[in-house]
Amino acid sequence: MSQDLGLDVRVDPWANIIGRRPGLDPEAPVIMTGSHLDTVRQGGWFDGAAGVLGAVEVFRALNALGVRTKHPLELVVFTAEEPNDFGLSTIGSRGMAGRLRPEDIKGVRDANGQELLDSLIRFGGDPDRVQGAERHPPNIKAFVEIHNEQMDHLERSGKDIGIVRGVTGIQRIRLTIRGQSGHSGTTPMHERRDALVAAASVITKVHALARKERGRAVATVGHIFVSPNSINIIPGQVVLDLEIRSFSVSAIRRIEAGLQTHIEKVEKRYGVRLASETTYSIEPTIFSKDVRRAISKACRKLGFSSMEIVSMAGHDANHMAGITRAGMIFVPSKKGLSHCPEEWTDPAQLIRGAEVLFHCLLELDKD
Amino acid sequence: MSQDLGLDVRVDPWANIIGRRPGLDPEAPVIMTGSHLDTVRQGGWFDGAAGVLGAVEVFRALNALGVRTKHPLELVVFTAEEPNDFGLSTIGSRGMAGRLRPEDIKGVRDANGQELLDSLIRFGGDPDRVQGAERHPPNIKAFVEIHNEQMDHLERSGKDIGIVRGVTGIQRIRLTIRGQSGHSGTTPMHERRDALVAAASVITKVHALARKERGRAVATVGHIFVSPNSINIIPGQVVLDLEIRSFSVSAIRRIEAGLQTHIEKVEKRYGVRLASETTYSIEPTIFSKDVRRAISKACRKLGFSSMEIVSMAGHDANHMAGITRAGMIFVPSKKGLSHCPEEWTDPAQLIRGAEVLFHCLLELDKD
Repeated sequence: MSQDLGLDVRVDPWANIIGRRPGLDPEAPVIMTGSHLDTVRQGGWFDGAAGVLGAVEVFRALNALGVRTKHPLELVVFTAEEPNDFGLSTIGSRGMAGRLRPEDIKGVRDANGQELLDSLIRFGGDPDRVQGAERHPPNIKAFVEIHNEQMDHLERSGKDIGIVRGVTGIQRIRLTIRGQSGHSGTTPMHERRDALVAAASVITKVHALARKERGRAVATVGHIFVSPNSINIIPGQVVLDLEIRSFSVSAIRRIEAGLQTHIEKVEKRYGVRLASETTYSIEPTIFSKDVRRAISKACRKLGFSSMEIVSMAGHDANHMAGITRAGMIFVPSKKGLSHCPEEWTDPAQLIRGAEVLFHCLLELDKD
Repeated sequence: MSQDLGLDVRVDPWANIIGRRPGLDPEAPVIMTGSHLDTVRQGGWFDGAAGVLGAVEVFRALNALGVRTKHPLELVVFTAEEPNDFGLSTIGSRGMAGRLRPEDIKGVRDANGQELLDSLIRFGGDPDRVQGAERHPPNIKAFVEIHNEQMDHLERSGKDIGIVRGVTGIQRIRLTIRGQSGHSGTTPMHERRDALVAAASVITKVHALARKERGRAVATVGHIFVSPNSINIIPGQVVLDLEIRSFSVSAIRRIEAGLQTHIEKVEKRYGVRLASETTYSIEPTIFSKDVRRAISKACRKLGFSSMEIVSMAGHDANHMAGITRAGMIFVPSKKGLSHCPEEWTDPAQLIRGAEVLFHCLLELDKD
């Protein structure tokens, strides 16, 4: 990257890769763009990569055209945006925004006993220096991220570009259901305390509670761990990871309340004990008006159609919004599919996203 | 074992360990006893081991008392009675009874790619010789197995010994549920084809169908595999292993029919596809009247209280019943717990079981 784009590249203590293009005013705060390169398991090609490669193309175009900006520009590849085996997502952007402390990552291991700290080092980070490695508002003017939409609003409306108004709130809850394991043949039905039957009731309820919100929220049980998970043993323990997403805080609270009421019923009905723990919680984010205006202006200049969108997926931009004016440019996703191999955005649509980013960065460079 | 008990020990092609004590009539058919030494994951100390060690004690007593039987006696340790990573249970007894053919085990691998055939060799078996390794009815007079009850009927009734009338039928079904994976935030609720939500409905129904039989049957979903099983991805595929057990064939058929009707509803309601496959099916077994009479006689002789019991667990004796007069002696299980670390039988109860086996074998040696 440094050779192609002439950038000054460094890896920060959170293992974020940052390429800097100097500005005419060396004292001016930086304008940043970028995204992540990691993907979910069995994911697609675009979630993250579209934002990094789009930014690379913009920097290439700036160089080719000999454009000099007043503000320095930074291209960032954030570390570990997706949930991973360490149970932590958006590690790089949270670190950069000062939302992840050294104690949050100390001692964190994956199921194989691998330490998160060791992985950070392996990717060029420096756990001893994460304290104080966050970036500060006076030094950053704005952050803009290209991303594939992951919904089908753009495709359905026939629009080129989504101007992201904000990002959904996310609440992740881990439920541990403790029943009693036992022989699947010899334990009578009425004496069972089957943790998986109790879990099934929770899964059904979570789905129903979100449907009741009629489009205002989604909720998913995506991960389940059953013990001992053997055909002739009644499941004694189940751990469920569920998440609720909504741009409306009250919708999230309603679903949580409905779940709590249901948990008490399940405990009584199936003789199990449920413990719940909030593993991740982020309020809805509203993006900067300045950045939204710059994206909108770029679209008009290029003659691209656009629409405002609320993102139901979390992004690095959420955390960057905590320390600077942040915004996102969405490009269409075919059928809205994402986090699966069928994820797709046409090359022409990706190019339009990069063109909008180009003009958006120049617009932000102005005032 | 051979040194302590003076037995002629061999390992048959199915890796069953067989110790033979000669009879006075070398032409007489053999009387067999024994059980298995493998356990389920996170299981207890007694399921299987009680029958092997009980038989060892009986052989020791026969030697100590200088008893000579007319019929040869064989002590057998069956291979892999419990379900295992190869997805096959009661391998040794099914092999001995001619119910497992070479083609049933060829190419079978566990999740790590380990071949069942290699494991058989490692435990002293000989896959090249399993063809024709079954035992034949004229050469076996009877088979008797001590086992812990795994239910609490004996404990509740205050009885010493259970005389097993027969063993439940078992039907195991693998259900593969195919939905569509996708991003947990960006896919609207009404467009989801969540395989885990569909699975939850099946789990709930299986439990309800068995409860409706009011003690005549049990049914369990013990194993579930969710893909991709990641917190922010809608589950695209779920594989469930369930089993139905009953001494009544019609109860098993009713539950199967109820499940089939429900599957069609689930496919429509959640937009998923379900495929079902019977992975194991065994009809209820009725044990030999001769063996039950011999056990009963032994109990009376020893002054032990007894009761007839139907076993809801499958056993090696099920398969032995296909080639000889078979029967089982149950000793009490504390609280009926089994397939869990809390499994327990008091030493005094185990000794009573061995004493009954001793007299039962001598009774069977008579006629």
